[in-house]
Amino acid sequence: MDLGVSEAAALLRDKDNLLILTHVHPDGDTLGCAFALCRALRALDKHVRVACADPIPEKFHYLYEDMEPCAFKPDFYIAVDVADKKLLGTQFADTYGERILLCVDHHHSNTKYAQNTLLDSKAAAACEIIFRLIRALGVEMDSGMADCIYTGITTDTGCFRYANVTSATYRIAADTVDAGARSAWINKVMFETITSSYLQLERCALDGMRMLFDGQCAVITLTQQMFADCGSDESECDAISAIPRRIAGVKVGVTIRERKDGTFKASLRTHDEIDASQVARTMGGGGHARAAGCELAGPLAEALHTLEKNIAPFLAIV
Amino acid sequence: MDLGVSEAAALLRDKDNLLILTHVHPDGDTLGCAFALCRALRALDKHVRVACADPIPEKFHYLYEDMEPCAFKPDFYIAVDVADKKLLGTQFADTYGERILLCVDHHHSNTKYAQNTLLDSKAAAACEIIFRLIRALGVEMDSGMADCIYTGITTDTGCFRYANVTSATYRIAADTVDAGARSAWINKVMFETITSSYLQLERCALDGMRMLFDGQCAVITLTQQMFADCGSDESECDAISAIPRRIAGVKVGVTIRERKDGTFKASLRTHDEIDASQVARTMGGGGHARAAGCELAGPLAEALHTLEKNIAPFLAIV
Repeated sequence: MDLGVSEAAALLRDKDNLLILTHVHPDGDTLGCAFALCRALRALDKHVRVACADPIPEKFHYLYEDMEPCAFKPDFYIAVDVADKKLLGTQFADTYGERILLCVDHHHSNTKYAQNTLLDSKAAAACEIIFRLIRALGVEMDSGMADCIYTGITTDTGCFRYANVTSATYRIAADTVDAGARSAWINKVMFETITSSYLQLERCALDGMRMLFDGQCAVITLTQQMFADCGSDESECDAISAIPRRIAGVKVGVTIRERKDGTFKASLRTHDEIDASQVARTMGGGGHARAAGCELAGPLAEALHTLEKNIAPFLAIV
Repeated sequence: MDLGVSEAAALLRDKDNLLILTHVHPDGDTLGCAFALCRALRALDKHVRVACADPIPEKFHYLYEDMEPCAFKPDFYIAVDVADKKLLGTQFADTYGERILLCVDHHHSNTKYAQNTLLDSKAAAACEIIFRLIRALGVEMDSGMADCIYTGITTDTGCFRYANVTSATYRIAADTVDAGARSAWINKVMFETITSSYLQLERCALDGMRMLFDGQCAVITLTQQMFADCGSDESECDAISAIPRRIAGVKVGVTIRERKDGTFKASLRTHDEIDASQVARTMGGGGHARAAGCELAGPLAEALHTLEKNIAPFLAIV
């Protein structure tokens, strides 16, 4: 059933012993949602804990005080920022997937797997909806909750840079700052700090960048050899994937990443003129309009040839 | 005389034939202030124009419809985001410096050179104050003014990333978005797009980066030869200067830039532990606590030696 914010608050008000679930590969938004809601429900004297199928990256450890297993057996399950039960991770999906009391989400693609869904696909971050839910629960936002909400908003908007930001996003950010969110420090941790190994990898990546179709397409290649040479790994690829599209004149930015098994994964980023998901689909992949991906068979020369052949028609018609 | 927002509005209300002056090397904030206020005063049927001693960079041309010389002789002068009359540029300072009716500014260091000063040093951008002034003038904000105000705020805060951002900053940003500011597009123009020559220069810079004092200091060197090889120039140095400090573990980030005359300019960026202006002062320079600069005599090896010798004591005491 689709719920509004006050209905979702009413649903939670008389429940106790709650387990909040995040998606796998946890990011600032799913974790911000989980720990903000956890803190708010604990302020109402409920027993609550958060669970994630994957380890929580160290840079997010400030979001919570402890992740100790609590001394209670959960009666109810809440999923936050989880568009599909598969994204809970295989084991969690099998165990809890059919028993989610409430899902709070902002993905248009939400599969409505939960018994109740609080969805706002216009929200830049699911944390915006959690902010409203906490207010509807009548809980005063403390600095801990404020840090969580701000983290979700700033990470899901690239520090207020993306087109998903609305005036509501800025107003909620203002309220979290008034409640004590350490906004400048959070942005420094999330966006400012880079590792030496990342810089090495970026340097290798730029050294090998190819410009195709008169500069309309830029291709960066990251190989296992590069990861080894730079002391880096695939966790540092995301920031590099953003580079090719940023170059003036580029319409399709591509980053090809070699997997350990010798296959390749291509990440495609486009501007308004070209639908990245359509390009990806011609190679058996998919995704969003501005960011999509596909798998490519090796060796590298073959993968590059496949890409070039499939991107060409899209640049010809622009 | 120091004025509040409503007093400044009252001062302007009965004036006509106004010339608004920006600072030299115009940035998004001074230009956003000037053109937002120009549009607001024109909405009150006044004769207004904007003047800047330097050419306005092309990326800011969307802020105004025309820069045609108007057919009137100014009677009153307004300076926006100009902390010192010297920053008007030599000729403008000589001509208008003693005749500024009103200065609207957010620099703590404002020298109070104007007849009246509307100063708020807590504002992240002078555009925040102009926003309040426009409201006090009773002018409804249109999308053109909103673009100007948003531009000043986002450029002076590094897209909401710096410590100068307050909850008021976010609330004003929200109001400009509601009034039609093209926030995502503006951020794309200001922060997202990079040139091929910039990427080349960054690659050269990273290739030659030196890590000193067990990784506590990172030094990037940009030479005239590098600018020539990359088809780049000194206008692309600013973004590179931000890199060294971003590396995990670095306390002092340095970028040394060779001038055409063979001398060097060092830009120093630090984190909380070290006062960049103190480091710069030991080499005859100055600046702010987190960002400062100094001149260094060549050749390069000599300049590097001077730097290393003068930075060492600051790292020893941390």
